[in-house]
Amino acid sequence: MSQQLVQRILGELESLVLIDPHTHINPLAAPSKTLADILGYHYYTELCHSAGMPKERIEEPGISPKEKVGRLVEKIGDIDNTANYSWLMEICRAFFGFEDTAITKNNWEKLYDTALAKMSQPDWEQQVLKQSKLEKVFLTNDFDDPLSGFDTSLYIPCLRTDDLVFHYGKPEVRERLAKASGVAVNNVASLRTAIGKLFDHFQKHGVRACAISLPPDFSPQKVEGPAADRALQVALSGGTLSADDSVTLSRFIFWTLAEYCVEYRLPFDLMIGVNRRVYPNGVFQGQDLFDQRTSLILYRELFNAFPQVTFPISVLAQVSNQELVSYSWIFPNVVTNGHWWYSNIPAYIEPDCRSRLQAVPKTKQIGYYSDMYKLEFALPKFGMYRRILAKVLAQDFVMERGWSEERAIELGRLNLRGNVETIFNV
Amino acid sequence: MSQQLVQRILGELESLVLIDPHTHINPLAAPSKTLADILGYHYYTELCHSAGMPKERIEEPGISPKEKVGRLVEKIGDIDNTANYSWLMEICRAFFGFEDTAITKNNWEKLYDTALAKMSQPDWEQQVLKQSKLEKVFLTNDFDDPLSGFDTSLYIPCLRTDDLVFHYGKPEVRERLAKASGVAVNNVASLRTAIGKLFDHFQKHGVRACAISLPPDFSPQKVEGPAADRALQVALSGGTLSADDSVTLSRFIFWTLAEYCVEYRLPFDLMIGVNRRVYPNGVFQGQDLFDQRTSLILYRELFNAFPQVTFPISVLAQVSNQELVSYSWIFPNVVTNGHWWYSNIPAYIEPDCRSRLQAVPKTKQIGYYSDMYKLEFALPKFGMYRRILAKVLAQDFVMERGWSEERAIELGRLNLRGNVETIFNV
Amino acid sequence: MSQQLVQRILGELESLVLIDPHTHINPLAAPSKTLADILGYHYYTELCHSAGMPKERIEEPGISPKEKVGRLVEKIGDIDNTANYSWLMEICRAFFGFEDTAITKNNWEKLYDTALAKMSQPDWEQQVLKQSKLEKVFLTNDFDDPLSGFDTSLYIPCLRTDDLVFHYGKPEVRERLAKASGVAVNNVASLRTAIGKLFDHFQKHGVRACAISLPPDFSPQKVEGPAADRALQVALSGGTLSADDSVTLSRFIFWTLAEYCVEYRLPFDLMIGVNRRVYPNGVFQGQDLFDQRTSLILYRELFNAFPQVTFPISVLAQVSNQELVSYSWIFPNVVTNGHWWYSNIPAYIEPDCRSRLQAVPKTKQIGYYSDMYKLEFALPKFGMYRRILAKVLAQDFVMERGWSEERAIELGRLNLRGNVETIFNV
Repeated sequence: MSQQLVQRILGELESLVLIDPHTHINPLAAPSKTLADILGYHYYTELCHSAGMPKERIEEPGISPKEKVGRLVEKIGDIDNTANYSWLMEICRAFFGFEDTAITKNNWEKLYDTALAKMSQPDWEQQVLKQSKLEKVFLTNDFDDPLSGFDTSLYIPCLRTDDLVFHYGKPEVRERLAKASGVAVNNVASLRTAIGKLFDHFQKHGVRACAISLPPDFSPQKVEGPAADRALQVALSGGTLSADDSVTLSRFIFWTLAEYCVEYRLPFDLMIGVNRRVYPNGVFQGQDLFDQRTSLILYRELFNAFPQVTFPISVLAQVSNQELVSYSWIFPNVVTNGHWWYSNIPAYIEPDCRSRLQAVPKTKQIGYYSDMYKLEFALPKFGMYRRILAKVLAQDFVMERGWSEERAIELGRLNLRGNVETIFNV
Repeated sequence: MSQQLVQRILGELESLVLIDPHTHINPLAAPSKTLADILGYHYYTELCHSAGMPKERIEEPGISPKEKVGRLVEKIGDIDNTANYSWLMEICRAFFGFEDTAITKNNWEKLYDTALAKMSQPDWEQQVLKQSKLEKVFLTNDFDDPLSGFDTSLYIPCLRTDDLVFHYGKPEVRERLAKASGVAVNNVASLRTAIGKLFDHFQKHGVRACAISLPPDFSPQKVEGPAADRALQVALSGGTLSADDSVTLSRFIFWTLAEYCVEYRLPFDLMIGVNRRVYPNGVFQGQDLFDQRTSLILYRELFNAFPQVTFPISVLAQVSNQELVSYSWIFPNVVTNGHWWYSNIPAYIEPDCRSRLQAVPKTKQIGYYSDMYKLEFALPKFGMYRRILAKVLAQDFVMERGWSEERAIELGRLNLRGNVETIFNV
Repeated sequence: MSQQLVQRILGELESLVLIDPHTHINPLAAPSKTLADILGYHYYTELCHSAGMPKERIEEPGISPKEKVGRLVEKIGDIDNTANYSWLMEICRAFFGFEDTAITKNNWEKLYDTALAKMSQPDWEQQVLKQSKLEKVFLTNDFDDPLSGFDTSLYIPCLRTDDLVFHYGKPEVRERLAKASGVAVNNVASLRTAIGKLFDHFQKHGVRACAISLPPDFSPQKVEGPAADRALQVALSGGTLSADDSVTLSRFIFWTLAEYCVEYRLPFDLMIGVNRRVYPNGVFQGQDLFDQRTSLILYRELFNAFPQVTFPISVLAQVSNQELVSYSWIFPNVVTNGHWWYSNIPAYIEPDCRSRLQAVPKTKQIGYYSDMYKLEFALPKFGMYRRILAKVLAQDFVMERGWSEERAIELGRLNLRGNVETIFNV
């Protein structure tokens, strides 16, 4: 395959202005303030911890941002092979003019100071958005987020619902719902009303998706009112939910969310497959893993019951990708969404991207989202994806199928940007 | 890897005359009559439906073939990225001289008319067979197929047994068996006799395989007569089979088929992993999906019990391919068979083909079958496979292992043709 | 990708002297005595059997080594496509100057005699070690191995514990433990003491790892003493263990081993996923297969309970590789270990190697072990791995990430040798 061909396609993809359809950006503090915000990303803390740095050293309370970076740099050489490290290097090169081949104990302080100076500029946020060619950024908002204080045409609200579905048995979650909705929940009808208030609130602020992450054994099913009410009453009375009750309540709330997605015409992002707190002594956000033994067959009833709702689906286990491809190929309301977390490395993105492009209608593929917590990460993450996409377009479409370059690039544009606009109605 | 090398190997593979060891051809109407027979293939209807075309519009009763094609063309641009679409283009180019890069609302009528003129020629069937280099074509015959009216040395009967194994509880299936066998079934002995009559009939017409598709949770086991009889009596009395009875009866009939495969010296094609009607509102034949959580360990008892029977195995989930490779590597009676359905795209064929060629005895691999419903599809489907096979032979055998081209080509010939002859005794 | 670049990296990797961290070498008879020791490797006998040679013909008692080779050669042409066969050819070329492209009925006798002459040289063992660049070789020792009669600085003891964990219910295993430990086991306390004696003995002889292979459904858990004792008493009384008791006893012994690994500071090699005797009529060592439906989530409790123990993990199913990558990425005590058995072919090694290098801290990856029974196999097996590693280093690190060649080679050295030293404290 000609490298020149790949480069030409890549050049065109790099000129695209992007909408990032899933991030964890805090719109009130979107860019990093110091290099500690970059190196504090869980990918670096968890990998340094995995390589042998004690959690206590990484997360010691009260240490300064500079101290934190200095400590992580001690171990970071052990993870310089990882894709995650390559994002860090690309950030440092692109934003801070860093030219060394690695971050070491000898050069990190200068880098820290350079970064600090840049990040302290009043227009740093705009600089990053512009250099990263980011036009809009989807958020992940708690259900009780006030959604105020930021430009919702730039930072687009998404209603994240894990707490409601999986933690409504906890008093603090019930209180948060009561406060956010103004509804005193005492049965399934009022629970439904309370959830509806959230959708009202989010719609007023331009919400573009409902979203949730799900464990590998979750299977959404319609629960009849009486069964749901019985489980709900246990929760409301402050009792401990049995495993069965807990499932029932989760299913009821999940199903209710899907019903509101019909009413409010929202896509429902499903992020399937994560087991939380598998390693509870891990660093912050570095405790979750997965069980590859899951299947989209668990979502059969849901996909059939809600033909009006689009489900952009992310899968955590790479072995789930073929199911995602096949379910998107058959169900009109299932679309592929990005490359998530443990599947977000080139070794998995490339085969997954290739199979989707070969088998799913081209209008039903959301190529990529950054999943970032700080703005600076869109640049290297989308960069990684674009390079892979350019390679697959060159090889599978121009070389193997004789497409023109322009046609291949057009497919790339749809994948990177066009489908985000149509699927999320941006 | 040298493209010239791949092309030379491909050239040799393209000169091969083929036996297609699994299709759904109707021998009384093997080629297409209009372009609607091509575009009506479930891959196009289901993908257009997936891309947003209502089922009602695609399957409206009474519309003409031309109207049907016109409607599908409205949506087909959305699936022009798929491997399935590339088959369509190759058919149009190879058989109808189509030279445009896509089928659009502007060119489809001319294409339709050209295709109609070609397909109306009296020797169209022979033209397609010749141009596709097809010497023989295996069929998929209902157990009560009369097998008359066609040349069984060209169109080779295979006894398909899904209905018997999974739907014998239905009165219409029992009636079909009664009629086909002439045996009044009233216990397991007479059920066995009735099934034996089918094998007699098929053998008289040159049957070369028994075949079945199986859901991911099916586990063949020997069932003792009394247990089978108890379940059978429920069915015969018109009662509703319990889940357990249903499994018992399926296992009994399946095991009986395997026993007859010993007696009639037939390979038993197992196509493992499909869940039927997952999306019941999908278009015709576009409703089935799968659960990747299956294993060939479920077939352990079968493979051990029938060392005399060869089991050519197709797996639906790509994650099953390594098990298939490993079980074929260990069990003398297990052989790999083609690339089935959702695994039949280049992104999956290439790694699966590569692993089989590296690990399974070369005499135990059936490279490919078309699974086609209409004759025109053998050309693009085998074409796709041959290009991948040529690439793997060039890279893994000539480049990596230093084989001569002729030796690599010989391996390709065995894979594409020779093994079909020996395994199915053609 | 430039072939010259790959070759330069490969050249450097080939100059490395190796420590092979997992083999089945008998240190009292490490090299082969005749070609029958090479061709008698289960890969050749099982593949020839799979290709159609009766077990009885392969394993007929009393046949001479030469007769055995002659028989296998009759069938070996049918498996000349396999990676395993390529090892055989590389052995014959490298050690015996064989120059033909295949072993046939016409050339095998000469090859046999040439090999016999070489293998009969008094320093054959040293020749093989030197030509294979092997410095140290890890063993797989039965728990009651006397560990005497060989140089434990060359052949490094590892305590293999399958029999203890899974077969302690058998009288002969209990007798072997009694004899090896000198402890009369009558309760869990004395069982623990007996096991401790084994660790004492092994430590005195320089043991570097405890190791075990595990079925896909095994889930280690801490068992309380009374429950363990109840199961143990059934075993000690000669009774038949129920399935539950059997699991309880296995878990108790396994957990006890992990506790001793803390005390003796030993890594605990886990080889996860094998089902034994799936094909009981297969040839010796050619009877085992697997069920891909397994998950490292089954080891969650273990990994959390023993942060002081390093677990080098091998997975049998290739679909388990991403879990292994992800668990190694998160858990400090989980490291990736080689490419095992059915996953030890280039088609699987390459994607697995790639994903590990992109996502696991570089200090936590044991690139490869030979798993060999006879010394001659290290050369072709490590050769295969080095070629793949060189390719991945060239493509993913030098080409894609702009690393210098020297830096990529350094990563390769760590992967092939450095990590073996640090992880096993050699």
